[in-house]
Amino acid sequence: MHFSKKFKQALRETDSHLVVGLDTDISKIPMFLQSEVNPVAAFNDLVIEATKEYVCGYKLNIAFYERGPEAGFAAIRSTLAAIPENLITIADAKRGDIENTTELYAKAFLDDFGFDSVTVQPYMGQDSARPFLRRKNKFVWMLALTSNYGANDFQFLKVGRQPLWEIIVEKAVSWNDQKIGFVMGASHTRELEKITKDLPETPLLIPGIGAQKGSLEKTINSLNHSLFVINQSRSIIYSAPKAENAEEFKSITGEAAQKARDEINGFLMLKKK
Amino acid sequence: MHFSKKFKQALRETDSHLVVGLDTDISKIPMFLQSEVNPVAAFNDLVIEATKEYVCGYKLNIAFYERGPEAGFAAIRSTLAAIPENLITIADAKRGDIENTTELYAKAFLDDFGFDSVTVQPYMGQDSARPFLRRKNKFVWMLALTSNYGANDFQFLKVGRQPLWEIIVEKAVSWNDQKIGFVMGASHTRELEKITKDLPETPLLIPGIGAQKGSLEKTINSLNHSLFVINQSRSIIYSAPKAENAEEFKSITGEAAQKARDEINGFLMLKKK
Repeated sequence: MHFSKKFKQALRETDSHLVVGLDTDISKIPMFLQSEVNPVAAFNDLVIEATKEYVCGYKLNIAFYERGPEAGFAAIRSTLAAIPENLITIADAKRGDIENTTELYAKAFLDDFGFDSVTVQPYMGQDSARPFLRRKNKFVWMLALTSNYGANDFQFLKVGRQPLWEIIVEKAVSWNDQKIGFVMGASHTRELEKITKDLPETPLLIPGIGAQKGSLEKTINSLNHSLFVINQSRSIIYSAPKAENAEEFKSITGEAAQKARDEINGFLMLKKK
Repeated sequence: MHFSKKFKQALRETDSHLVVGLDTDISKIPMFLQSEVNPVAAFNDLVIEATKEYVCGYKLNIAFYERGPEAGFAAIRSTLAAIPENLITIADAKRGDIENTTELYAKAFLDDFGFDSVTVQPYMGQDSARPFLRRKNKFVWMLALTSNYGANDFQFLKVGRQPLWEIIVEKAVSWNDQKIGFVMGASHTRELEKITKDLPETPLLIPGIGAQKGSLEKTINSLNHSLFVINQSRSIIYSAPKAENAEEFKSITGEAAQKARDEINGFLMLKKK
């Protein structure tokens, strides 16, 4: 199924715009899981069990899985196997290289692991995205305006009358308007307003809420379409650091996810009035 | 030892500006190695034995090690262990993310694996480089003007009077002028001329010769300093596809590396006249 279709279906079926980021740091895993054979995998399983009713999908930042990589990559596999099939999966790899090399990243993340989609760096241009776009039912989230402080270094540079991020968006859409969406940080509300107006059918992945302290209400109010997911990680997956067993962990973590989903939906409903 | 010092020493001691790219594709490994427990590791060992007298260092593009990742990452470890200590090592990872996340990449590549240096994407700005720069004896090769066709999409965009790549170089040097060098594709001779004139102490990693068909002579002639390495991969490591045993493989591969090193040095000497 084309990602676009899967995405819209997931948004509808789950009634959720929340993506939980499984950015699992082994040092933050509760004590009761530390003795597991693969604590990261076990932790992720519990998070998924606790939150799957409340989310549209899951995002794994690959950096968290490259240390002790043998165990890390095994954890990716088992985590993906635990995610319900109708939910979207994002490999937050932020990769980009010459075409032949990017083909290998595409094989690894989209073919072998089987993620639905992947985040991609724009700097090296079209051939660094093409291998990902070649896969029929897959999707690229191109970095456009990121949520970190360093976004100010280059992303707002004026090229003629337009900021760099906007030129990147226009260019990327010209390569493939069906299979490319963009990463736009939650605090960039003016720009979110513009991109959702100019590109009403283009999905957005929005990080920067939660631990990164964006204002959810302002973000939601800036959006002119609803093909978006909001990523939250630490504020959900680490909401139960002192949990002493699986039931307690799932109860607290599930509640955090439910609250996050409801908060997003609440602001969406307020908008409609 | 500071990378800068190690780098200069290596250039001097080896009398070589050649870096061999260990971009090892298991499907291109000669038959006689296919039955090894870890063919990629075995192949790399032979390439290193064959070429270590002729190179300044080795570069591993991490994409080649992320498929069948368990074996891939084990190959990285054994390969690094086989590289003589005075040669420079480059993790061609082209990573970049928010600071907390980039810290994990820095731990993985610079601390755990122990690479001397790493390639980094500029788009997310300073905090996406900072964790790499924090490591005392390590070094960042920031992408500036890449060797692929997609370089034309964004890297030459005019910001005021300057192209984007140049703004990135200036900005990066302002963060840390001791520990940042740049990736500049071999065919960009005009820009190589400029950057080596403006920044006479800033190391350059130059891909795009060999299989990517740049003109070595033109490239060498454009350089105004000698703190550079030229990366060649496929034209060296795959020069002996039909080799039937280790001795034959090493003989042919070693010759290819020697020839490449001598060619670079030959053009350098011609320049001095």
